[in-house]
Amino acid sequence: MSTHSGPGSAEALQRSWAEKRVLIAGGLGFIGSNLAHQLIEAGAVVSLIDCLRPEYGGNEFNIEGIRDGVMVKVADLRESETMAELVHAQDFLFNLAGQTSHLDSMRDPWTDMEMNCRAQLSLLEACRQNNPAMRIVFASTRQIYGVPKYIPVDEKHPLAPVDVNGANKLAGENYHLVYGRAYGMHVSVLRLTNTYGPRMRVKDERQTFLGVWLRQLIEGQPIRIFGDGKQIRDFNFVDDVITALLLAADEAQADGSIFNLGSSETINLRDLAELLIEINGEGVIDQVEFPPDRKSIDIGDYYSDYRLISETLGWQPRVNLRDGLARTLAFYRQHHEHYWP
Amino acid sequence: MSTHSGPGSAEALQRSWAEKRVLIAGGLGFIGSNLAHQLIEAGAVVSLIDCLRPEYGGNEFNIEGIRDGVMVKVADLRESETMAELVHAQDFLFNLAGQTSHLDSMRDPWTDMEMNCRAQLSLLEACRQNNPAMRIVFASTRQIYGVPKYIPVDEKHPLAPVDVNGANKLAGENYHLVYGRAYGMHVSVLRLTNTYGPRMRVKDERQTFLGVWLRQLIEGQPIRIFGDGKQIRDFNFVDDVITALLLAADEAQADGSIFNLGSSETINLRDLAELLIEINGEGVIDQVEFPPDRKSIDIGDYYSDYRLISETLGWQPRVNLRDGLARTLAFYRQHHEHYWP
Repeated sequence: MSTHSGPGSAEALQRSWAEKRVLIAGGLGFIGSNLAHQLIEAGAVVSLIDCLRPEYGGNEFNIEGIRDGVMVKVADLRESETMAELVHAQDFLFNLAGQTSHLDSMRDPWTDMEMNCRAQLSLLEACRQNNPAMRIVFASTRQIYGVPKYIPVDEKHPLAPVDVNGANKLAGENYHLVYGRAYGMHVSVLRLTNTYGPRMRVKDERQTFLGVWLRQLIEGQPIRIFGDGKQIRDFNFVDDVITALLLAADEAQADGSIFNLGSSETINLRDLAELLIEINGEGVIDQVEFPPDRKSIDIGDYYSDYRLISETLGWQPRVNLRDGLARTLAFYRQHHEHYWP
Repeated sequence: MSTHSGPGSAEALQRSWAEKRVLIAGGLGFIGSNLAHQLIEAGAVVSLIDCLRPEYGGNEFNIEGIRDGVMVKVADLRESETMAELVHAQDFLFNLAGQTSHLDSMRDPWTDMEMNCRAQLSLLEACRQNNPAMRIVFASTRQIYGVPKYIPVDEKHPLAPVDVNGANKLAGENYHLVYGRAYGMHVSVLRLTNTYGPRMRVKDERQTFLGVWLRQLIEGQPIRIFGDGKQIRDFNFVDDVITALLLAADEAQADGSIFNLGSSETINLRDLAELLIEINGEGVIDQVEFPPDRKSIDIGDYYSDYRLISETLGWQPRVNLRDGLARTLAFYRQHHEHYWP
């Protein structure tokens, strides 16, 4: 575990995870694999399922160092027999599987629906039929709020996704809450904001722009910004997100709840690019026109109100942006050959 | 058309529908077929598509009297070539297709997702690719609000569907709004509350309880109420819903909007049963325990705040409950052999 301390920290959780049986869906992806690293260190018995579709976040290198300590199943959540076996006898399920590209969801809404609706139903049905007592945490997204009507955005903000991906992620979130209420299952939901850190997918522009920027910086290319870069965002370093996932899984009072994650350290995209360049020691910015397909689904300024999880579960983000970005940059500088050609 | 008058009435709309080309998805179902009757009378050129799955609301008898005046295609919205042909050259699409049984959605979430998510995406893609200028009205449901946090429920009420059907209907609504915003298509959404009237499906208990009660009454059986029947509901006679659909389609200011329907005449289920018996002249009530599968998805009291559509489009429900129920009872007394064995 990391060097956090105090209530709600990863350290405080460490004791309770020894020998616990944990399944991570999307376990070879960005957040799933970082979670696996921390759980292994805490003594948990960890299984990962990932479909490893090349356009998604799964990457074999993400479990470098813990490969011998985890069970890995490369399969699709829609394979019901596989799922029945996998969920059986687990204590916890962290559900981080899903298609996350906004643009892909508009180009091919069917695949997005398969991965974010059908696959989620399949997983939940497997749990209901084979292990309804397990504790489940679903990673949802701030994307379902759409264009903010006010900021910071709290959990009561209207839901108005701007793309098919958001509509389907919202369906996935609702399936989890429906199964929780109708079948008495133990489900909680975290709505993640922009998460960054080691093991993000940075192969192309499908997922986070921040990954693309890191690659541009390491390759000595200009960092490309769409429009004036004045949009404000909040960012969580992945370790902080993992602490939130563990807290939500561990606390019975999280049952049936929805919690925003977020950060008090907000920044506009231009300043973020400049901070990255400063940390890197060199680099330039290339400001370009907003491509129409991105502009039509852009949401303007966004940052979360995360007081609910703070007050209920004692969670606080602990890694500041400068440190987090420095650690992320160092990771990709060392390992970039595993993340892009 | 009916005998309504004044702003927002069906009569006021009559002039503008002559020669208009209109496609109704779910056109052999309850609301779709009533809409078809009114549009034919108003001189529109009407096409209907319906999958006619026996467990859904489609019924050939629903177009008795207008059969020769409409084009009917029995097909599934997921058949993309059929859809491409059908949406081509239409001025309007009324989208009333969908799986509506709450219980079926919990027993078989996959089929519900196919009909309420995939089929909706298929329809929207057909429109986007072949006729993005047409005006589209999507029939959503008050069900997506879940258990009311306050009543009357306005459009800003939090969305928390209690069953898989609600989660998928919400996804369908969001797809429509996403296509409207991202592609500049003309889409509006009506969130219907309990709608009743001639041509409801009353074959079994899959859809409305009110249809089942009418059947019980006509067959001389007791009207069966789950629990104490104290839950308050609002009801719209189908003609009023059709007026709302036509207004939303006809008014450019409805673009991108979501409107609740509702009624100022609310009633609890026990009183509704007694009113039905009074109108019928005879009948008894049989109060039974709430079955657990229904109880887990029951929402308690509900009625809508429909001021937004009232103020924006001038819509008001005009058929009172007593008259609407009498007309409905008379319809089934005459035609019941086409609605149940």
